[in-house]
Formats: sequence, structure tokens, C-alpha cells
Amino acid sequence: MEIRLPKRSFSEALSVLERVIPTRSSNAVLTQLWLEARPEGLLLRGSNGEIDLEITVPAEVSGEGARLVPGQLLGQVVRGLPGELVEMALEGGELEIESGSFSTRLATGDPDEFPRFNFSAGELVSLPAAELARAIQRVRYAASNEDYRAIFRGVQIELHPGRLRAVASDGFRLALYDLARPLEQEKRFVVPARSADEIVKVLERAAGEVSLGLEGGHLTLAAEGFRLAAALMEGEFPEYERVIPAEFVFEARVDAGALRDSLKRVKVLADRNNHRVDLVFKGPELQVVAEGELGRGNERLEVEAPEGAEMSLAYNAEYLLDALGPVAGAARLRFSGAASASVIQDAGDEGYLAVVVPLRV
Amino acid sequence: MEIRLPKRSFSEALSVLERVIPTRSSNAVLTQLWLEARPEGLLLRGSNGEIDLEITVPAEVSGEGARLVPGQLLGQVVRGLPGELVEMALEGGELEIESGSFSTRLATGDPDEFPRFNFSAGELVSLPAAELARAIQRVRYAASNEDYRAIFRGVQIELHPGRLRAVASDGFRLALYDLARPLEQEKRFVVPARSADEIVKVLERAAGEVSLGLEGGHLTLAAEGFRLAAALMEGEFPEYERVIPAEFVFEARVDAGALRDSLKRVKVLADRNNHRVDLVFKGPELQVVAEGELGRGNERLEVEAPEGAEMSLAYNAEYLLDALGPVAGAARLRFSGAASASVIQDAGDEGYLAVVVPLRV
Repeated sequence: MEIRLPKRSFSEALSVLERVIPTRSSNAVLTQLWLEARPEGLLLRGSNGEIDLEITVPAEVSGEGARLVPGQLLGQVVRGLPGELVEMALEGGELEIESGSFSTRLATGDPDEFPRFNFSAGELVSLPAAELARAIQRVRYAASNEDYRAIFRGVQIELHPGRLRAVASDGFRLALYDLARPLEQEKRFVVPARSADEIVKVLERAAGEVSLGLEGGHLTLAAEGFRLAAALMEGEFPEYERVIPAEFVFEARVDAGALRDSLKRVKVLADRNNHRVDLVFKGPELQVVAEGELGRGNERLEVEAPEGAEMSLAYNAEYLLDALGPVAGAARLRFSGAASASVIQDAGDEGYLAVVVPLRV
Repeated sequence: MEIRLPKRSFSEALSVLERVIPTRSSNAVLTQLWLEARPEGLLLRGSNGEIDLEITVPAEVSGEGARLVPGQLLGQVVRGLPGELVEMALEGGELEIESGSFSTRLATGDPDEFPRFNFSAGELVSLPAAELARAIQRVRYAASNEDYRAIFRGVQIELHPGRLRAVASDGFRLALYDLARPLEQEKRFVVPARSADEIVKVLERAAGEVSLGLEGGHLTLAAEGFRLAAALMEGEFPEYERVIPAEFVFEARVDAGALRDSLKRVKVLADRNNHRVDLVFKGPELQVVAEGELGRGNERLEVEAPEGAEMSLAYNAEYLLDALGPVAGAARLRFSGAASASVIQDAGDEGYLAVVVPLRV
């Protein structure tokens, strides 16, 4: 087989695959990249056992054949190539790569040694890749990084008639994003948060529509140029709807960026154990206050709030910052009481909703 | 005391001091920053026990007084301030800082608890700060990071009639930089490499001349706006002159950037234990070759070399890359034999000289 392609597209595809391919693994074959000459181009595959990723890069190809090559090594070699064009050929079991004044020969392995890939064909639903990326990316922060309850380390995707929802929670806070879509199914599944991160990265590179398929405990995403299969989590995501307050005693609007900046400044002074900051609303003014053993910080912001309204609430600053993170412009802060769950929404994007619980003080 | 100054200059000075002030220390007072109102401005001091650093920032000051403030905390607070101007006042033992809509009060400590600073006044020599920075920075890489021989973890500064020299070695390679200066003294002292790094950072910010003083085992550098005292190393730097070859069998000239790029590409394939790359000279062509268990890499470069000359040498790729690092344009590669020390110089800067020993193959 012989393959010619631009260094740039080759190198870009490898950098996405390198995020998946482990540097070391107890299953050593997973450190290998599957490289295959196909009539339609160069097909590259990698897996970490949780995610299988396949990227097809347009290339001039003659002949067919597949080999395994050390993944990280190939990435390093290709990124450093001096020319704009890369020429590859398989000779006597070695992969020869030439570009400009540089040439290399890499030992290769037998593709039969690679574990089976879990791509499925069944098309459950199809939607714009960028929208699915946005939904997952907006809620990802709320998933747990700890061992507390395994299912909380995942992002649940729900299909409902008329909408797709992504939701994540660590038991202390929750984020969800609703995407209006002409769907008919009723289905839910949970993707591990780490896989969700890779899915977002891959979707962000994709143009156009992505199709979703479910088969054998795997979610398959397929779009122009790539396929990705992610192992789903087992177990039930808890019923979370009841923690979202339906009635509110008070609502304010504030510029999300200004509040984030203020929280970052003030939290430096906060108690290091609970990261407590106080939001003190008084008419058109919001005071953000923190106090710890090293001192006290204090900032005043303008807010839109009902006239004469006064309210004081304490939060973990990190949770507030996370919840405000996906809000681009004005945030709606909706309070059900000083000791019960608060809701943060994006005034410019109805799809996003975050629940944060005040600290008990 | 009351102090007003621009956030930008305050924040810049703190970021330099934060490099010195430890986050944690067995001597907890070292995590504090000395903040002092002086008629000439705001004086800031920090120390890690090895380096004492003092920076004076122009400021409007009324009253006098000095306090200790947690160093990293102050840096964080000031970087995040919303306004362009910072106003500070000392009230009841607390430092009040205001900027824009934000205000804070920090607990402070007694400056008498701080260890004595080691700044000396004696002026040994004075030279442009940028030149001293260049000399130290060019040779720093060759100092050892390991425990092998303590003195090798330092950079020696030598004063000779007519020149200043910086030199570093780890016993395997050596770098020196000569700066022509109208000096009269004969003197040498060794600065720990980590302190040398901080000295370079501080000198790079300084404008104009810097004066050097030696007193009580410390080197003091003083220039407009700052003073720095660094504890010197004890022990004798070895006699290194004899390892610099005086006669050469072969000399080539090559673009340092092109050779570095090529070494970076080829070394990916090198044996992981000795990082061996081969330089194979043949007339106007240089081949850079590496071969390891994963494959073989090979690149051809143009060189200027004597007609008909052929030579083959093996090096640790990392050592070659380090030695070429400070060379901006063309490098002179001078060989005394395949098994004896090689010299790398900068064709455009006579001050720099590096010694690298070929691998035994």
C-alpha cells in the first residue's frame, strides 16, 4: 500500500486519537494505532477500552492493508515532519514515512491482535454535532469526580418526544440542558464523564449531523469522517426532577461574567474548608462577601431585583462559579429560600438550568 | 500609612516576588511578604532563605510603616482587582485594599519576625543588566540537576581583567560565556543554579546597569528598583579549561535551528536509554540518524565543510540540543575526534562555547 496526504490533516487526526490512545496500558495492544489504507482514504483507529475512535482522513491511496503502529510515537513523528506532504508505504512489515528531507521506518504489528471495535450501525436519532456537543459540555462540570456513587460519574442523555436532555449531578448540585428536537423515542443512557469529554472534543471538530446508535451496551456516534463508540455505564441515574424547585420566593438578574469575576476575587479570602461566599441582595445592589482566617473580601455589583427585596444566602464559591460557567450573558438567579435549592438559568438560553444548594450556616 | 499605585506595576512586582516566596516552608515566616511604605514608594521584600529580593514600586505614599502579609495571597488578590488603581491603608493591624467595587482587609504580621536580609552595599563591578542575564542564561542548562557533585549544581561567575565569564558543567558537558568588560579584578564565585534562574528573571526586567557586591557569602545585585542577594555555594569549581580541546581535526558550519529541528524529529526514534543520534558528515551533506527498537529515523541537511571530508560521530541527542540552544544563527561544530570532546560555538557570537563529548560506541 502507498498513501499520500497533507501533514496537517494527518497530524490533526492523530492529535484527536492520541487523547484516546493510552501511553501505557496493562493491555499493551491498546497503545497501538490501527492504520489502514482504504479506497476512500486513510483510516485510523484507536481505543482505550472505554472508547473506540475511528477517523478517516482523505488521502491518495493505492493498494489496501492495515497495520498497527505505536500511537504516541506516530503522533510525535508526524507532528515534527518538515514537509507539508507525507508519503507512506508498507515495505517488509515496516511503515516507511517520508516528508521533505526526513525519512523513517517504523516497526508495525498485526491488526488481528487488536480487540474488536464496538461500532454499531443502528441509527436511533440524528442531530447537529455542534448542538449535541453544547448540551453535553454545558452539564459536564456537575458530574462527580469521586467514588461516592459510581453513576454520578456519568452524564445521562435522555431522549423524549420533542427534546434531548443532557443531565449530570454529583448529589450536591445538578445541571441539565434541554435541546428541542423533533424526536419520538423515550430512552435514557449514561455515558462516563471522561468519555463525555472525548465525545465533546470529537463533536466539536465535526461538521454537520451526527447519528446516534445504541447496541451491546455501547453508544455509537457517527458523522462525516469519524465514528466513536463509548461503553455505557450500568445502573440507574437517580430521579432528580424532585430536587428542582418549582416555586421561588425571589428572583434576580445579574451579568454572569461580572458575578464570576467577583466570586473569583472574593473567594481568595474565603474559608478554605467550605469556600463560603455570601450573596447579600439589597434592592439594586448585590454584595459578594467572603471571610476567612486571613481576612475579608467584599464587592458590590448591580443587579436587577424586585424593589425593596432583601435576602442573604451562603454558597460554596466553586459550585456557584461552575453553575455560572455556561452562562454567556445575563444569569437568572432564582431562590426558593436561604436553606433550600437555588436555580441558575441563562436568560439568553432557555435550555440550561443548574441547581445549587446553599450552605447551612 | 496610605499608599496609592497602579494595579499593573504592583501586580508585576508581586509576580516576580512570588517566584521567590515559598507557598509553604518549614520556616513559616518566609511565606510572608514584607510590605513597607517609604517616601520613595512601596517597598516589597521576600525571601526563600537562599535568595532575598527587594523591589521598590513607585507609589504615592503618606506616612511610613512596614507589615508582613501572606505573599501568595496578596499576589492573588492584587492580580484579580477590578480597578486600575489600588489604594491601601493600614488600620488597626489590618491592611485594607480597595480597587473599583472591591475591598478587602488582610490580617498582617510583625516585620520584626522576618529573618535579616543579606543585601550588601560593596560595589565590586557594574555592568549592563541585560548582558549579565545573557551570560548566565546561555550556560545555565549545563549545570547539573542531580546530587552527583554539589558544586556542579551551580553557575560559576568569574571576573578576570578584561572579561566576565559564566560557566556551568555537570561533569559530562560544559558551557561558558565570555563577556568583554573593562574589569581589573580576578575573582570567582558560584551561584546555585536555581538562584541563577531567578537572577536571570529579575535582570531581564531591569533596565540599565546592575552592580555586583560580595559580602558574607552572598552576592548582591542592585539596580534601579531592586536589590537581590543570593547565598553563594561553598566548594571549589573544578579546573575545566583542560577539557576544552585546543586542536581540531574537522570543522563544519550548519544552521543551528535546522539542526535542532532535525535532532528533535530524529531523536523520537532513538534508543531510549542513551538517546543516541549519529551525525554522519560527507562533503556538503550531514545525515542525522537514530535507530531504536521501534524503528529508524534519518534526515539530510546541508552543511559547510571541507571538501572530501568524512566523519561519523554519535551523541546523546539531548546534550546536542542543549548545546545548540543558545545559538541563534549558524553554529560552528568543531571536532577533535570521534571519541574526544567536540566544541560548539555560535558563528555570530564569539562569547559562547559549549563542550559535548561523543558517546562511546
